[in-house]
Amino acid sequence: MTASHISMDVCEEQALKLLRVEEALALFLDKARTTSTCEVIPLQHSLGRVLAEDQRVDFDMPSVDNSAMDGYALCLSELNAAPQRRLKISQTIPAGAPLQPFESGSCARIFTGAPVPLGADCVIPQEACLIEEGWISFPADIQQGANIRRRAEEVSKGDKLLSKGQKIRPQELGLLATLGHAEVSVMRPIRVAIFSTGDELTPLGEPLASGHIYDSNRYILSALLQSQGYEIIDLGTVPDQLSATCDTLKQAAEQADLIITTGGVSVGDEDHVKNAVAQLGKIEAWRIAIKPGKPLAYGDVQGTPFFGLPGNPVATFITFCLFVRPYLQKMQGTESQPPLTVQLPAGFNRKAGKRREYLRANIQENRIVPLTQQGSAMMTSLTQSEGVVVIPEEQTIDEGALLAFIPYSAYFS
Amino acid sequence: MTASHISMDVCEEQALKLLRVEEALALFLDKARTTSTCEVIPLQHSLGRVLAEDQRVDFDMPSVDNSAMDGYALCLSELNAAPQRRLKISQTIPAGAPLQPFESGSCARIFTGAPVPLGADCVIPQEACLIEEGWISFPADIQQGANIRRRAEEVSKGDKLLSKGQKIRPQELGLLATLGHAEVSVMRPIRVAIFSTGDELTPLGEPLASGHIYDSNRYILSALLQSQGYEIIDLGTVPDQLSATCDTLKQAAEQADLIITTGGVSVGDEDHVKNAVAQLGKIEAWRIAIKPGKPLAYGDVQGTPFFGLPGNPVATFITFCLFVRPYLQKMQGTESQPPLTVQLPAGFNRKAGKRREYLRANIQENRIVPLTQQGSAMMTSLTQSEGVVVIPEEQTIDEGALLAFIPYSAYFS
Repeated sequence: MTASHISMDVCEEQALKLLRVEEALALFLDKARTTSTCEVIPLQHSLGRVLAEDQRVDFDMPSVDNSAMDGYALCLSELNAAPQRRLKISQTIPAGAPLQPFESGSCARIFTGAPVPLGADCVIPQEACLIEEGWISFPADIQQGANIRRRAEEVSKGDKLLSKGQKIRPQELGLLATLGHAEVSVMRPIRVAIFSTGDELTPLGEPLASGHIYDSNRYILSALLQSQGYEIIDLGTVPDQLSATCDTLKQAAEQADLIITTGGVSVGDEDHVKNAVAQLGKIEAWRIAIKPGKPLAYGDVQGTPFFGLPGNPVATFITFCLFVRPYLQKMQGTESQPPLTVQLPAGFNRKAGKRREYLRANIQENRIVPLTQQGSAMMTSLTQSEGVVVIPEEQTIDEGALLAFIPYSAYFS
Repeated sequence: MTASHISMDVCEEQALKLLRVEEALALFLDKARTTSTCEVIPLQHSLGRVLAEDQRVDFDMPSVDNSAMDGYALCLSELNAAPQRRLKISQTIPAGAPLQPFESGSCARIFTGAPVPLGADCVIPQEACLIEEGWISFPADIQQGANIRRRAEEVSKGDKLLSKGQKIRPQELGLLATLGHAEVSVMRPIRVAIFSTGDELTPLGEPLASGHIYDSNRYILSALLQSQGYEIIDLGTVPDQLSATCDTLKQAAEQADLIITTGGVSVGDEDHVKNAVAQLGKIEAWRIAIKPGKPLAYGDVQGTPFFGLPGNPVATFITFCLFVRPYLQKMQGTESQPPLTVQLPAGFNRKAGKRREYLRANIQENRIVPLTQQGSAMMTSLTQSEGVVVIPEEQTIDEGALLAFIPYSAYFS
């Protein structure tokens, strides 16, 4: 046990070393175990799933020299020798026709994707040609090989096109269709159990008593998980009692690959979830040098891993994106992919702070502009912004300095 | 009829003016009709749907002054007057407790989110305090109002928090939960019919004959539509005959709000879809100054709008993102949102071209690096990249010039 974390029974008020984001992430990822269960499903249902096998191509792409345009295929030396540089059409080759020989001394009407006849060595687009009395006249500046897609110029038989662990976006699904795969082997989706506790939580749709709040974090977690393709086991709201919490945790551990709750993870919180997890497995509380989102608990319930995220909704959102998302990707066997990040100039000045900050921000005239309201209880800061800007710890920000901006859409995929 | 477009019966070989992207988009958007049908669904099923009504809050948020930390609430002037700046705990206020008066001359143990008792004017985090023999000692640098979230500091009763037409991301769903909405009124999803034609198309899973290709565009379209939350009516592959094509188009027009096919839209193509659409409604072929994706057909089938996208899969993908996506957003009543775009330095040099190019690219060390292989038939160019870089027409690109980069994830939402 290091000074940067404590078991739950250690003095509540102790000031603790703050863990850096990278340290915390490495620590959690080290514990994540990758699933090995896969399943074969129809291609059209595979969007967002993760490939369980490398995908190789068993034919050349293109499989034959073919036309990149609608136009005319010809042999350039024959054209150059032809009187008035004009030729008659001897054959028409639609897309899907089998490879055929070329009739010497003529040209072939050819369509995009159609096989270039053997003996022709260029294709001239129809817009560049002139048709008169059955003769086709061609422009002067023709190059051998023009507008022909060469056999195997994209990929050769046997090439690996996609790797085990790649997530299937629309384009990967399209590529698999191009390869002719009607089915695909993907990883079984990781199952995540979520539930809420806290007597101050009111079910949605019911009137709100003084001091109470709606049970919203479970919906945020559920939507984040859904956007990333995981299976959700929603165990609802659990009464604020140790025995009920233990029962729910046991049920979660049996059904799920990961358990997530929110709230009650600050050092010193009186919370049945912490006690129940400690009883059924183990739990450690961490303090991470980030804002929003300092406290975080990690442990297991009868062997099933457990995350306790901070209770403020923005902190729930941010810590999910920073820690739980990569943890789940490792569990799922997804290729390690940090979210798409771009460096853009700051449109603001800011004093240095001790913790790394993830400010909700928009891009205006290619500069990063954070919202004014950044409270970690303020969901509107997330709905009014396109992404987060990362403010490094201990660093004064001057307008114009390049900072990392991560669009939310990068987290939702 | 202008020189920039022609009806299908006009001379095939005519060279046409190319339409700029903005002109083409304005032309299509002008024709898009917004649906007015909405439905009320449970909040947890609303991810990716579009709000049918403005969302206002009918209570202050927060509803009461409350603690931003776990710690101790006190009255600063009382503390400053207390011997040795220490106080005893008189009351404990958990989250969810009703608002209560403050016992003068003491401090209150308080937890995050709990109402600050009337009379206390700051909260000191527990980490900053020292407990000794029942007395709490406090640090020197305390400010009035510290760590108190003021009633209504986020929003006031009656404020509009979300607008009709906003798409529900995880954070909007979370905010609606915070407002206590168990159900939400959303637009009925636009229904899009897709089908393929072409005798060269082989169903997935079957062996590929020479010169044939797999029927992949339908899968790309389907995945793109699915990623954006639309309802798909997949009418499969239609035999390359006019009567069968007409029958399928009629079926599509009855069931769908929009019909999309791919291929056969170049000027001069021999294609039954063009003829069938012309018979049942009207169709115009456009040439747009973009690469990939020049030819595009737009029209209607018995009043149902119709897009004929270019047949090369990358061109299908790009023209869908550029034209069909905003068209569908308007049909769906989605707030007009250009995809998130950032300006980053080019990591390459490039000669000027006549058409605007959308190169598939990655970001390396915060510079845009296009893939080497950019063929419009090459699906691998889409699978090996994170987004597109926009190369303006008629513009030479020097390394370091700022260019627009659009991550694919921005198109998938």
